[in-house]
Amino acid sequence: MIEIDGRRLNARLQAFAAIGGTRKGGVNRQALTEEDRRARRLLAELAWARGFSVFQDPMANLFIRRAGQDETLPPMLIGSHLDSQPAGGRFDGALGTLSAFEVLESLEDAGIETERPVVVVAWTNEEGCRFAPGCMGSMAFAAGEIPAEWQQKLATDGAAFAGELKATIESLPRAQMLPLGFPIHAYLEVHIEQGPSLEAGGISIGVVTGIQGTRWLNVEITGQTAHAGTTGLAYRRDPLRALTTALSGLYEMIMPSDPDARFTIGRISVEPGSVNAIPDKACCTVDIRHPDPARLDELERSIASGITTEAERQRCTVAISRSFDMPPCTFAADLQQVVERAAAERGLESMNMLSGAFHDALFVNRVAPSALIFVPCLDGLSHNEAEHVEPEHIIAGCQVLAQATLLLVSTADS
Amino acid sequence: MIEIDGRRLNARLQAFAAIGGTRKGGVNRQALTEEDRRARRLLAELAWARGFSVFQDPMANLFIRRAGQDETLPPMLIGSHLDSQPAGGRFDGALGTLSAFEVLESLEDAGIETERPVVVVAWTNEEGCRFAPGCMGSMAFAAGEIPAEWQQKLATDGAAFAGELKATIESLPRAQMLPLGFPIHAYLEVHIEQGPSLEAGGISIGVVTGIQGTRWLNVEITGQTAHAGTTGLAYRRDPLRALTTALSGLYEMIMPSDPDARFTIGRISVEPGSVNAIPDKACCTVDIRHPDPARLDELERSIASGITTEAERQRCTVAISRSFDMPPCTFAADLQQVVERAAAERGLESMNMLSGAFHDALFVNRVAPSALIFVPCLDGLSHNEAEHVEPEHIIAGCQVLAQATLLLVSTADS
Repeated sequence: MIEIDGRRLNARLQAFAAIGGTRKGGVNRQALTEEDRRARRLLAELAWARGFSVFQDPMANLFIRRAGQDETLPPMLIGSHLDSQPAGGRFDGALGTLSAFEVLESLEDAGIETERPVVVVAWTNEEGCRFAPGCMGSMAFAAGEIPAEWQQKLATDGAAFAGELKATIESLPRAQMLPLGFPIHAYLEVHIEQGPSLEAGGISIGVVTGIQGTRWLNVEITGQTAHAGTTGLAYRRDPLRALTTALSGLYEMIMPSDPDARFTIGRISVEPGSVNAIPDKACCTVDIRHPDPARLDELERSIASGITTEAERQRCTVAISRSFDMPPCTFAADLQQVVERAAAERGLESMNMLSGAFHDALFVNRVAPSALIFVPCLDGLSHNEAEHVEPEHIIAGCQVLAQATLLLVSTADS
Repeated sequence: MIEIDGRRLNARLQAFAAIGGTRKGGVNRQALTEEDRRARRLLAELAWARGFSVFQDPMANLFIRRAGQDETLPPMLIGSHLDSQPAGGRFDGALGTLSAFEVLESLEDAGIETERPVVVVAWTNEEGCRFAPGCMGSMAFAAGEIPAEWQQKLATDGAAFAGELKATIESLPRAQMLPLGFPIHAYLEVHIEQGPSLEAGGISIGVVTGIQGTRWLNVEITGQTAHAGTTGLAYRRDPLRALTTALSGLYEMIMPSDPDARFTIGRISVEPGSVNAIPDKACCTVDIRHPDPARLDELERSIASGITTEAERQRCTVAISRSFDMPPCTFAADLQQVVERAAAERGLESMNMLSGAFHDALFVNRVAPSALIFVPCLDGLSHNEAEHVEPEHIIAGCQVLAQATLLLVSTADS
C-alpha cells in the first residue's frame, strides 16, 4: 500500500492550469508553444527539487526518473501529456502527468525502494491540434524514429514544427538528452474519460480495454469565385454549396444510424472569404472514429463519395487526403487485471470500457504492455474550458495508479 | 465630340493593376491598405502633373478637379473606386476611375473649356470586404456625415477603421481637405457589368436603369464544444451541423425557385477550430439580393427561420444581425437618355439593364441625378483574378463617358 497526497496533487493541478489559463477557467497550452515550454520547465524544476533526474528525447518527450534498486532493469513508465486544445480543459493530459509525478513523490516520501526504476513521462503533442497528427511524441517513441515528413509541418498559426521542436528542447538545457525510444517494462496512464459512462454509472475507475480507430481527412473543394450580386445560378460553381450540402447529408447518415460511429467537422474555411464573393475554395477537416476497422474504411468511402457527388453537381473539383490514420487497439489483458486489482485493493469500484478518444497509451502499447485508467469528468465534457473532475475522482485515479505501479515494480523480473 | 486616348487609358490600367497585383494577374488592393494608398498617390501625382487640383474629404474620398468657366456652378462628377476584393480583378472600380481621369485629360488635351467644373472621384471602400459595409465613401458623401459607429469598426485583418482612414488621408498631405458632401450637377460612373448579359448580346454599352437591393447578415450559432471521439450523438450540441444543414436547405430553396434572387455565403468559420473538437461556435455571412424590397424581407425571414429551426434541433442558440441593408434604386430617366444619346453619337449599340451589384452611383443618386454605364467583361467574371475586359470595350465605355459628360456640362444652368 502507498498513500498519495491528494492536497498536493490538487494544488499542482491548479498551478499548471494557470500556465496558458483562459478567462473561462480553461487552458490554451498548445503543443510546442511558449506555454507548453513553461509547463515543462515547471515539471522539471519540481523534479530537480526532489532529486529526480530529468531527460528528454529528440521529440521533446520529457522524462523524470526515480532510480530503482536494479538500474539495469527496464523502467516502469507512467504519465500522460501536458499540451492542451486551444480552448481546452485543465485535466485532459495534465491529470495523468501530475498524477504520475505524485506517485513518484509519494514513493519518495514513503521511502519505498522499488526494484525497477520508475519513470514519469510527459509526451509531446498528444492533442494534434496545432500540428497534426496527435500523439506525435508517443508515436515516434514507439517507432524509434521521427518520420521525415514531420520536419516540413507547419502549425495552424504558421510556425514551423522543426523550429518549435528545437526551441522547446532548448528551453530545458539542463535536461539530459536521450535517444528516441528505450526498453520499458510496462506503461500506465491515467486520463479523464472525456465521455459520460463512468459518471452515469457512479463508478470512479474505468479499466480501458481498447481504443477505437481514428481517421482524419482533409477535404478541399475548388470552384470559381464570382460576384455575389451579379452571378446567376447557371454561372455559379460554388464549392461551399457543395460542401454544406454533402456535410448535411453525412451528418444525417453516419451517427444516427451507427451508435459506435463518430463524425466531426472541427474546421471549415473558404477562400477568398469575402462577404460578397462566391468562394472558389471550401475546405474542412473530417474526424471519423469506429472500433471496427472495416467500418472505418466504409465510412471513409461514404464521405468521399458524398462529397464528390455534390462537388460534381456544382461543377467543382475535390481533393481528399488522409492526415492521420490510427487503427483500433486492444490493451494487454494481464495489465487490465493489475489495474482492476489495484482498484479493488483501494476499495474502488471499476468497470471495463472502450475509449472513444485515442491516447498515448495506444502507441506505447505497440512496444510494451500498456494500460489506461479512466476517471469520470463532469457531464462527460472535454476539449472544453468547462471540463471538470471532482477532487475525489482525482485522488481515486492517482491512488489506483500508485497501487498498480507498486504491483508492477514489485513483481519479479520482466 | 471628344476623342479619348485609348492607348493611354490601357497603359494606365496596367500601371494601376501592378499596385497590389497578384501572381494570377489579379489585384489585392483592399480599402485603406498601403496598396490602396499607393494607388491613390499615383492618381494624385498624375493629376498634379496635368495641373488639376486634388482634394480629399474626411472619408478619404479623393477628388480631382478641372476648373470650369463658371466656378460657382456645381461640378459634374465622374468616377468610381480604386479598392479591390482580396482576390479581385484589375477592372472592377479602376476602369471607371481611370476612364473618368482619361476624360479629364482628353478635355485638357483638346483644350475644351467647360462651363461647369468637372471633378473625378475615387470613392473609398466600395467593396466592403475589409470593412463592411461597401460604398462607405459614397454613402457618407450622400449623407453628409460619417456614421458614428463606423469609428469602432475593425478590419477582417484586425486593423482599426479609424486609424486606417486617418493614415490614408495623411498619406496625401498635399491634397486639400474638403468637408464631406458638396453640391454636384450630376454623377456618371462607368463600371464592368460583372455579369454575362452584354457579352451574350454582343452589345458594348449597358444603360443601367436601377440596382437590386442588397442585404448582408451575420449569423452566429452557439453550441458546446466537446471531444470528437468520445461524445455520442445524444450529447452533441453541434452548431456546424445546424449551420450546414440550414444552408443546404437554403441553397436548394432560394435561387432555384427565384431567378431574380441571389444568395451567397462568402465567409464561414468555426471556433475553436480544432480537427478533433466539436465546435462551440459556427458563423457565416449571408449576402442576399433582389430587385423587389418585399421579396428581400421574405428572404431574410426564410433564412432566419431556416437557421433557427436547425439550431434549435441541435440544441444551439442563434444570433442573426444585419450588417448592411441597401434598398433597390432607380436611376434618373433623363440621365439614362443622355447616356443612350452619347452611345448613339459614338455609333455604339446600348441596352437597358438592371444591375446585380450595388455601386457608388446608387448612393450618389440620393443627392444628384446619377447614371451608371456598363461595359461587358469576359464570361461575366468579376471578383476574380481572371476578370478581363477587351480593349475595344474599355475604349467604348470611356468614349461614352466622355461624350455624356460633354453633353451634361454643355447644357445650360442646373
